[in-house]
Amino acid sequence: MSYDNNNIFAKILRDEIPSFKVYEDDYTLAFMDIMPQADGHTLVIPKFQAETLLDIPADELSHTMTTVQKVMSALKSTLGVEGVVLMQLNGAAAGQTVPHLHFHLIPEHLSKLSGHGAAMGDMEKIKALAEKIRTAL
Amino acid sequence: MSYDNNNIFAKILRDEIPSFKVYEDDYTLAFMDIMPQADGHTLVIPKFQAETLLDIPADELSHTMTTVQKVMSALKSTLGVEGVVLMQLNGAAAGQTVPHLHFHLIPEHLSKLSGHGAAMGDMEKIKALAEKIRTAL
Repeated sequence: MSYDNNNIFAKILRDEIPSFKVYEDDYTLAFMDIMPQADGHTLVIPKFQAETLLDIPADELSHTMTTVQKVMSALKSTLGVEGVVLMQLNGAAAGQTVPHLHFHLIPEHLSKLSGHGAAMGDMEKIKALAEKIRTAL
Repeated sequence: MSYDNNNIFAKILRDEIPSFKVYEDDYTLAFMDIMPQADGHTLVIPKFQAETLLDIPADELSHTMTTVQKVMSALKSTLGVEGVVLMQLNGAAAGQTVPHLHFHLIPEHLSKLSGHGAAMGDMEKIKALAEKIRTAL
């Protein structure tokens, strides 16, 4: 699968468009989903150019999962929740909307999630949550 | 979090109860979900005793993700689907029903999934799918 360098997450990685970042290291970036399925909905992406989970080498994926663990831990402590849904969609046929590998971390019960990519969130609320999560990371 | 050695996946790992296995190596096991949210719904688990994603060391998680990739690839080729949903629930508060870390691989669009843990599947159908997937691995 050829990688589309103009997808929105590629632009976020290049800082061409703004995002509410909560964590960044050499291999990964974590930022808020602006169409949250629950408060605190955060995305973790590799900097490596992969469209789906099948397009990333093991070492890059390992770095990504370490960041997923870090962010999940921060979500639990920051938001005071006990449960976090991890979701990752592979291919438009699965519902993937941005063709850059991304992990959804959603601090809510699976049965209570809003629709995926269904509605824009409250930007001030998302910004405030990002601040809280960032300080825990 | 203390690990409950009597959870159903611990028993499957010890071969104390049957399962439709599709892949096994030193670190991981993959087997069919008997309450499938779509045809081909497969679970990948580490042999390491972890309850959630926060309870597994990086190297064990890396092995697990490699198996997730292998199984996902096999699901796509075997079932002829383009999309696979990866889901992993952390904590009963997120909807996790078995307290052993497990990744759901569901070859279907997110919007078309049946409820999580909602209903038993057709065992003969699941067995036949397991055969097909196993041969691709």
